[in-house]
Amino acid sequence: MPKIETLLSPALFHLHSEGIEDKQVVIIDILRATTTVVVAFENGVDHVVASASVKETQTFRDKGYLVAAERNGITVEGFDLGNSPQDYTPELVNGRNIALTTTNGTRALNMAEEAETVWVASFRNLTATADALTQNGRDVLLFCAGWKDRFNMEDTLFAGALAEQLMSRGWSTEDDATLAAMDLYTRNQSQLPDFLEQASHVQRFKTLHLESDLEVCLKTDSSRIVVKLDGDKLVGQTM
Amino acid sequence: MPKIETLLSPALFHLHSEGIEDKQVVIIDILRATTTVVVAFENGVDHVVASASVKETQTFRDKGYLVAAERNGITVEGFDLGNSPQDYTPELVNGRNIALTTTNGTRALNMAEEAETVWVASFRNLTATADALTQNGRDVLLFCAGWKDRFNMEDTLFAGALAEQLMSRGWSTEDDATLAAMDLYTRNQSQLPDFLEQASHVQRFKTLHLESDLEVCLKTDSSRIVVKLDGDKLVGQTM
Repeated sequence: MPKIETLLSPALFHLHSEGIEDKQVVIIDILRATTTVVVAFENGVDHVVASASVKETQTFRDKGYLVAAERNGITVEGFDLGNSPQDYTPELVNGRNIALTTTNGTRALNMAEEAETVWVASFRNLTATADALTQNGRDVLLFCAGWKDRFNMEDTLFAGALAEQLMSRGWSTEDDATLAAMDLYTRNQSQLPDFLEQASHVQRFKTLHLESDLEVCLKTDSSRIVVKLDGDKLVGQTM
Repeated sequence: MPKIETLLSPALFHLHSEGIEDKQVVIIDILRATTTVVVAFENGVDHVVASASVKETQTFRDKGYLVAAERNGITVEGFDLGNSPQDYTPELVNGRNIALTTTNGTRALNMAEEAETVWVASFRNLTATADALTQNGRDVLLFCAGWKDRFNMEDTLFAGALAEQLMSRGWSTEDDATLAAMDLYTRNQSQLPDFLEQASHVQRFKTLHLESDLEVCLKTDSSRIVVKLDGDKLVGQTM
């Protein structure tokens, strides 16, 4: 059966990059990039281009894209959208394409692009993603995007949730980071919002008055759509 | 009150190195470097020199030191001691000096040497170390030595144990890694050996037939001696 590894910070990627071309990678940026991307697909977006720079993202406007840019948790001036999943309404995004750049999520995507398949996941498509990983069958690296290379609680909790689903299907792990993430998740799953209350990113959210995004980002299995990288585009697929 | 940060891998040190000269650092390498050093002081060693290379360590023999070298969990040929705390008996080490090099512990010590104070700690002197940190009063970085830059369970659990003691004395943290380490420890403290059973390093120990070291390394508060770096020497001090 396939194996699970967990990357707790992008700064540790070099420890896991060997053989990456034969692995699946799941990019995790729960607050909020990967949640926002999943919501965009739930609401009918056609494809999403993840771009490294604000400047490059802006150039997609002329190609008919909605453009989205976030830095340090805030929408960049002159863009249609930021990084709040609640802004990606069906009215706005259905049938459209989006070019998106975010503080941590886009960088993680770029780092992982050599992988056999790169998935983008959130609590909203947890089980659907576990199904897609199982169907593919290759070893998986759960890539927590973190916050500026720091360990972050909500990404680690989601890695634990996904690892726990895979382990229950017979996958295995020899990786302490995966074991720790699973323990954190299984011990706190019945009270995730309370447990996350103390986390640094949630504190940052409160300063930015983004509490209402939290509920959207912690909603589990609201969608059967999985999202993967196809060339330079993120595309959706219903499981 | 002072603050706590936790470094889950030496590869993340750059995120915590700013202002390090005003912080205390606690080096944590539970299996087994920092446990072994604490046991050496329990058993009467005068001082310990932590050396980066096997070759340099060997040169201390001519100065009357016991020489100790471990690589990949195994004693290097031609040395008096390896990295098993059980070899550091009073009969052998009382009143002696030791030069020591280990896979991860020595490197961590060298990385942290700019700190205001560098402590070396283990479960054996957990409360004594918390007392010493409190007496000093500066912010602290709990530095998990890990295994070749990977996250490791037993070092993280000890960081959680120490953080929990400091928090109960009124210290604070804004660091998700510290919160995660505390959660892992407090939820599993009543069954640490069982919980660690699945950890990668413990599996490695079994391959090397080192199970009996585990008990020594998880023994809590057997000593009131704290160990700190004084110039290029580790010295002990009774709290």
